[in-house]
Amino acid sequence: MTNIVDHSTVGLHGRATTAQPGTFHVYDTTLRDGAQQESMRLTVADKLRIAGYLDELGVGWIEGGWPGANPNDTAFFAAAADELNLKNATLVAFGATRRAGVRAAEDPQVQALVDSLASTVCLVAKSHRGHVERALRTTGEENLAMISDTVSFLVDQGRRVFLDCEHFFDGYRLDPDYALEVVRTASRAGAEVVVLCDTNGGMLPSWVHEIVSEVAKLEVPLGVHCHNDTGCAVANTLAAVDAGAIHVQGTINGYGERTGNADLIPVIANLELKYGWELLPEGRLAEATRISNAIAAVTNVVGSPRQPYVGASAFAHKAGLHASAIRIDPNLYQHIDPAVVGNGMRTLVSDMAGRANIQLKGSELGFDLSDRELAATVTDVVKEREARGYSYEAADASFELLLTEYVGERPAEAFTVDHWRIHSGADHTGRTVNEATVKLTANDETHLVVGEGNGPVNALDQALRRGLSMAYPRIADFELVDYKVRILDSTHGTDAITRVMIDTSDGERTWTTVGVGSNIIDASWEALVDSFRYGLLRA
Amino acid sequence: MTNIVDHSTVGLHGRATTAQPGTFHVYDTTLRDGAQQESMRLTVADKLRIAGYLDELGVGWIEGGWPGANPNDTAFFAAAADELNLKNATLVAFGATRRAGVRAAEDPQVQALVDSLASTVCLVAKSHRGHVERALRTTGEENLAMISDTVSFLVDQGRRVFLDCEHFFDGYRLDPDYALEVVRTASRAGAEVVVLCDTNGGMLPSWVHEIVSEVAKLEVPLGVHCHNDTGCAVANTLAAVDAGAIHVQGTINGYGERTGNADLIPVIANLELKYGWELLPEGRLAEATRISNAIAAVTNVVGSPRQPYVGASAFAHKAGLHASAIRIDPNLYQHIDPAVVGNGMRTLVSDMAGRANIQLKGSELGFDLSDRELAATVTDVVKEREARGYSYEAADASFELLLTEYVGERPAEAFTVDHWRIHSGADHTGRTVNEATVKLTANDETHLVVGEGNGPVNALDQALRRGLSMAYPRIADFELVDYKVRILDSTHGTDAITRVMIDTSDGERTWTTVGVGSNIIDASWEALVDSFRYGLLRA
Repeated sequence: MTNIVDHSTVGLHGRATTAQPGTFHVYDTTLRDGAQQESMRLTVADKLRIAGYLDELGVGWIEGGWPGANPNDTAFFAAAADELNLKNATLVAFGATRRAGVRAAEDPQVQALVDSLASTVCLVAKSHRGHVERALRTTGEENLAMISDTVSFLVDQGRRVFLDCEHFFDGYRLDPDYALEVVRTASRAGAEVVVLCDTNGGMLPSWVHEIVSEVAKLEVPLGVHCHNDTGCAVANTLAAVDAGAIHVQGTINGYGERTGNADLIPVIANLELKYGWELLPEGRLAEATRISNAIAAVTNVVGSPRQPYVGASAFAHKAGLHASAIRIDPNLYQHIDPAVVGNGMRTLVSDMAGRANIQLKGSELGFDLSDRELAATVTDVVKEREARGYSYEAADASFELLLTEYVGERPAEAFTVDHWRIHSGADHTGRTVNEATVKLTANDETHLVVGEGNGPVNALDQALRRGLSMAYPRIADFELVDYKVRILDSTHGTDAITRVMIDTSDGERTWTTVGVGSNIIDASWEALVDSFRYGLLRA
Repeated sequence: MTNIVDHSTVGLHGRATTAQPGTFHVYDTTLRDGAQQESMRLTVADKLRIAGYLDELGVGWIEGGWPGANPNDTAFFAAAADELNLKNATLVAFGATRRAGVRAAEDPQVQALVDSLASTVCLVAKSHRGHVERALRTTGEENLAMISDTVSFLVDQGRRVFLDCEHFFDGYRLDPDYALEVVRTASRAGAEVVVLCDTNGGMLPSWVHEIVSEVAKLEVPLGVHCHNDTGCAVANTLAAVDAGAIHVQGTINGYGERTGNADLIPVIANLELKYGWELLPEGRLAEATRISNAIAAVTNVVGSPRQPYVGASAFAHKAGLHASAIRIDPNLYQHIDPAVVGNGMRTLVSDMAGRANIQLKGSELGFDLSDRELAATVTDVVKEREARGYSYEAADASFELLLTEYVGERPAEAFTVDHWRIHSGADHTGRTVNEATVKLTANDETHLVVGEGNGPVNALDQALRRGLSMAYPRIADFELVDYKVRILDSTHGTDAITRVMIDTSDGERTWTTVGVGSNIIDASWEALVDSFRYGLLRA
């Protein structure tokens, strides 16, 4: 049986092999340019953790921040020198060329780069004549001197130097001679790589290819730094590589100002899986999904489920047509094996789906749904519940409880709840108080218990644990590790339907349950009870 | 003063003008392929509303669904024939070529396309020899006959026919002769446009350009349909256009299965603003942001704030460096004027920002922050609060209340709250009951009031309204229109910090407030009180 999907790793283009993987730079700027992302705030501890993940992924260069420009970044470089033990990557300090009219050695901002102890420095410089004159308010000549002096000074201090040409592409279109002179000047002064930046992100791949091809005639090692304002950041990066760039800059999860920077993982995955290059140490690409998620957990800016390669939906199939074909061969409907990037194929349980999806999902969970009538009944129940706001696509544990009810032998319920109550308010000092009472029966014993928490749901969780702990001591191992709230119809303000998803762990595995209600407490209570019920069922 | 950003709308490439805008098709498949998006479910009413928005945007073609394949889509076409009054767009029914071994006229699925009354039909056909043999389980020859027969039959019925070649690019790489024969066959049978589909989304722009250039030698009008699995859907679409395609398919907000379809708005915006083509009726591109948001409100699948052109962050600036330059000229750091796509520039208040951002934002709101010491104090307060979880980037009303406190003359507070309490639980029938009591003073009168709601926050809202309505009758006009909950540190389950954002409208304008607390009720209460306080202050 031949595999009909072409997984060939050889590029269609001869030109795709012009760069040599051995000397190719994968350069991450999540900690510097990525941190410009709206609503992202990174502490020194966050930055150290992210740098560790980037090193695990196997990038060559980690741009850590701008020491001297803000105290947080200065503190990061100090902490990194003490604590960060990078195995693959080199830490890079970002900074600017000297100010106009001062010597590089006397510019405190340049001195801060030396003080950062980073072995490599990436300097940003103007390469757009209009920006030199209007934003920097100096002459084109002085700007070239600023570049030349600062690069030479840092090289004399024993640093490797890269130079980011801000607004290069716009600048080239306005005045190509000046833009090219910036590249020549930086290289002559000792910059190892000159990075062409599409700072405003307005370029298209064909334009980038044409301009980089021209600049490449200078025979200076070139890099590329793209933003996603036209939706083409990944493609623009590839276009520059096709035209000869040997250094790509990007961020994890495409973090960055406005529409974000080039998403580094798709850039790497395209070059490795489509061009057949080896950029990361062996086996590291398979860590991409885990590392993307881990970094999102630190930044608290969740990636899109639709992110290429690593998104939760990237290999998820919903269409009935596809689900049927996937039963023949999963490769009929996926462009790569998701395992190579550490992701997995998922079949979505959903009201778009026919019986085929439900049967496939059921068999993943070990239930026999080959009986067509039974499968149709379960499909109807799922459709009816999803219409009310439930979502089983992610809540595998709730879906399994539903299957247990309809398909498996229905086990005796671990416990039944008689009633619950919540009391929240402020005490006489103004401190908030939340109490929950729960009356439940487990192992034929009835308990009326009370719990206190820092919120109503936490109080319910505490009361439920207390009520169940006598009958089921192992409940002490269950921990709520994630809690998500979604307001389903947000046009009615606080009247809306609320969906809560809870992830619970027993230290070995994690499961997800869903609850729906007219308010967050009802919905949370349902997801909470299902979470304990599922944990006790599987234990 | 010359504008230094090159806003020229002429493409760099001669080849970008090979297609003639007058005969160019903008084809939207949000309602069919976009609806494969994970967690999206569209009712007939939803589809009618979305079709109306697409028509407002000015797309040429709206693929409405697959009549006959599911009852919802059949009902949509029936309702569309009655109710939908499209001004620009033509509604298209999607379907498949006839089954193997039956006549087109006798295939009920083909008949359903005729019954849909749509004037144009888009047929999906296999063009990949491996898929023909393994998924369709028929011969290459029969597949060609299925295409030829179905196209001819529908043309004979007076329909315009487009043909989607599923898995075209993968198929072409496996067996180019067969793939080309499919294109020839469809065209000969009367298909107006043959659409080359990257169904699995694994292509790169250089590959697409090369393959479409080869197919274009057949001189058949070509279209392109891309998915974003390599992060290149927009660029792949442009590459096909550069190679001669005159029909582009995509979805609003890039909705679709897995990583989604080509995001249609950036495709259009790139062709209009970068190539200088006129694809939409005059003035419609300026509706793009509003229409993207309106469609997201119907689908309830919110677009990314980083979406090119229309995202909330697409023209937002946070970096201190950029904010300083923007005070000189906004065009220094934006690739287009955001107004041309109906978006706007925003300065973000954030702890990354220096005083420059706070001053800029303050003056947008009418506060004089030119005093450096005052600006520094406000910056410190914002930083300290953002460190505790507040976010003023979106909550303009809370930021304005903060400025009022520090900068403006502090007005007398409209009301003070003595205490509040919540009681939630189930009554004897199992129905949930939520009561809130609030004691507050307004206009020197103290009121102790009780409110009931379908959740604790709704109960607090009701009680607060009742308590304030005697002193401020206009409070009846305030309506909570959106309510968002975000758990800030989701590694601690229900112990996490909660941030709530509330949008309130008085029928004329909408304002946003933020609250933070150890639980959702505390956080909601703060945002709610600020929302009423702001509304009364501005009234």
